[in-house]
Amino acid sequence: MAVTHLSCRECGSEYELTAQYVCHRCFGPLEVKYDHGALADDVASLRRRIQSGPQNIWRYVDFLPLVEGQPGPSARHLSRVGLPAGCTPLVRADRLAERLGLKDVWVKNDAHNPTHSFKDRVVSVAAARARELGFDTLACASTGNLANAVAAAAAALGMPSYVFIPADLEEQKILATGVYGTNLVKVRGNYDEVNRLCTEISGEQDTWAFVNVNMRPYYAEGSKTLAYEIAEQLGFRTPDRVVAPIASGSLYTKIAKGFDEWRELGLIAGGAPIMNGAQALGCSPVATAFAAGTDVCRPVKPDTIAKSLAIGNPADGPYAIELANRSGGGVDSVDDDEIRAGIRLLAETTGIFTETAGGVTTATLAKLAARGDIDPDETVVLVITGEGLKTLDAVRGTFEAHEIEPKFDAFESTVLSVPAHRATA
Amino acid sequence: MAVTHLSCRECGSEYELTAQYVCHRCFGPLEVKYDHGALADDVASLRRRIQSGPQNIWRYVDFLPLVEGQPGPSARHLSRVGLPAGCTPLVRADRLAERLGLKDVWVKNDAHNPTHSFKDRVVSVAAARARELGFDTLACASTGNLANAVAAAAAALGMPSYVFIPADLEEQKILATGVYGTNLVKVRGNYDEVNRLCTEISGEQDTWAFVNVNMRPYYAEGSKTLAYEIAEQLGFRTPDRVVAPIASGSLYTKIAKGFDEWRELGLIAGGAPIMNGAQALGCSPVATAFAAGTDVCRPVKPDTIAKSLAIGNPADGPYAIELANRSGGGVDSVDDDEIRAGIRLLAETTGIFTETAGGVTTATLAKLAARGDIDPDETVVLVITGEGLKTLDAVRGTFEAHEIEPKFDAFESTVLSVPAHRATA
Repeated sequence: MAVTHLSCRECGSEYELTAQYVCHRCFGPLEVKYDHGALADDVASLRRRIQSGPQNIWRYVDFLPLVEGQPGPSARHLSRVGLPAGCTPLVRADRLAERLGLKDVWVKNDAHNPTHSFKDRVVSVAAARARELGFDTLACASTGNLANAVAAAAAALGMPSYVFIPADLEEQKILATGVYGTNLVKVRGNYDEVNRLCTEISGEQDTWAFVNVNMRPYYAEGSKTLAYEIAEQLGFRTPDRVVAPIASGSLYTKIAKGFDEWRELGLIAGGAPIMNGAQALGCSPVATAFAAGTDVCRPVKPDTIAKSLAIGNPADGPYAIELANRSGGGVDSVDDDEIRAGIRLLAETTGIFTETAGGVTTATLAKLAARGDIDPDETVVLVITGEGLKTLDAVRGTFEAHEIEPKFDAFESTVLSVPAHRATA
Repeated sequence: MAVTHLSCRECGSEYELTAQYVCHRCFGPLEVKYDHGALADDVASLRRRIQSGPQNIWRYVDFLPLVEGQPGPSARHLSRVGLPAGCTPLVRADRLAERLGLKDVWVKNDAHNPTHSFKDRVVSVAAARARELGFDTLACASTGNLANAVAAAAAALGMPSYVFIPADLEEQKILATGVYGTNLVKVRGNYDEVNRLCTEISGEQDTWAFVNVNMRPYYAEGSKTLAYEIAEQLGFRTPDRVVAPIASGSLYTKIAKGFDEWRELGLIAGGAPIMNGAQALGCSPVATAFAAGTDVCRPVKPDTIAKSLAIGNPADGPYAIELANRSGGGVDSVDDDEIRAGIRLLAETTGIFTETAGGVTTATLAKLAARGDIDPDETVVLVITGEGLKTLDAVRGTFEAHEIEPKFDAFESTVLSVPAHRATA
């Protein structure tokens, strides 16, 4: 096992690997630290070990915050419990590239996870660590993807779970959560109030693991696996640029951390990728701060169709801005119409149907390309974090259909008489 | 390449590997034939070749009806075009087994495909063969899963496509199809009328490949990959029993064909599995005929929530009944309430959320177990063919939720005061 301790991102204070998430000295967020020195001795065999591992995130167990077992938890064993996430496709998107005037664009399709979002990665890690620490119940505050992931993971593990949501959440998300037999708690308030209530409850219910509260340092580490997979799928090298969404800023910064860890070990070739963050204009505190040249993200009240990115007060905002500057990237925002167009563009050119968050990243990539920010020869990875079936409303009115009587004549006169729609046209 | 010709299932007449689907002599359906003799010489190396193949159906290219290239199409090349399907998880379901009084139950989760149903398998094969044959347009008649799969595959391949649907189809299915930029044709009629129109059009539009009309012999072969994967995932052996849904009967019979091919080659251990077919009571022509001891399936007018299984006049019904008898299995049906309960049972015990068709197979497995038809020591595979997000309506009203003010007191008095819901209880 390589994981060593928790460390405060602000003051560097060190803590043991418990369910603590805030620094007792300065109230800064805690992050997991590792000692990978022993792995650096033989990176060739490490690469082979990874490649012969299971087809899920547990092939990267040496880089995840689990401590049980000697010499560490078994990737094979972890793969047999719960709902293994990850090893999602990295698809070469030549027709998308062509439409954008680029040459080498790849789509990392994380809708291809058990509950169809990247949240399965972070929940898998949080749940595994929660079991190591002896918690008997999983919980979370969520507005959708996380609710699905926690309820499903708990069902797969045979653990009881409590999922807290705003009472006015869309019925679709409620149905796709309640089906797993979770204890669903509708809270009469907005997401911030739900979150505050969960923080309070996590202080009282000492056998409950709130994946995004007291498990947060472990939970967040799950996002690094996106970087590991991208690098492995590109042949153990980094891409030149990554376009990823920013909600809390955790996913965006953890992807960079994943590349950094492997580069430091010499496990992969290539430099640190340029990191572009993507926000919806209706909830863009990080993009606004980046444009203003500050790292202070002023909280906003979200008003966007990209609800899974609608965090008005992003916890990792300052770290996201620091990364955007350090990597030579940036943080952009796109409006709701651009988001809908982004969903269509991705679907028509790749056959991948993403939710609104993926529309945000696709539209941001298109904006960067149109602005000339991207060298056409760059290898660019577009991170798609969720599934279009979860936000079907965003697609309504974006296409037309023929309507005919069930007769060949009607087909000929109505359908054949007009040019075929070609996505590439 | 091992594929040799098309053969009539009724009179045995042989035909070349064209886009023909009906016997010119007796109007029987045509099926693809192979000569796998050369593969039998060294099954150990064949097994290794399969295992080192890509993580999708093209690892089984030797058993699929593609002819291009010397010595045959490359699995790696096929994997780089389109939307590779398959290699979906086979999950050990111990808690489901326990609830049913069984010991060794596995779930083959085919919702884990690019458009979240097994239709991606058959469309992948039909599209690849259509391109070999020089067709320039993909088409289908569908009421849902197939529409999604064809529109997405065409978008990924950069081909124009035409998808014909009944005009009164649910808006959800229309949105999840139109997003891909297909030419969507709403036909004012029921599914049978749509299907007849497509058969007529396929006779006129000689550059169009209707995956489930003129491509049907190739298309149907894609379902065999479910058997190959199950056998490989069990360590190159057959399960004792498979429970699979029956709509047209094609999937059910092709799974058996897949096991038979590999058993004949000596590639896998174990006998031919007992095959149990599952239908919805509101559309159960095959179950009704099986119970009556005849192989004549009298057409019915479907009335069930399991719309993806609602084929009132199943083309492969007689072959399905023959298989049920030959394998020692049977064909059962379950009503809409049992289907809803099946969806909940699977979700609560495995974390897998399936559509109504999966509710049919899960409820049928439960019925077989309750009836004592299954020896507890049998290895049983439950085939889940689609995703719960596509039939959310079936879940409404199947669970309860708490509703509280955003205060700890309210949580304590309303939520903590009642026993936690435990899926295993």
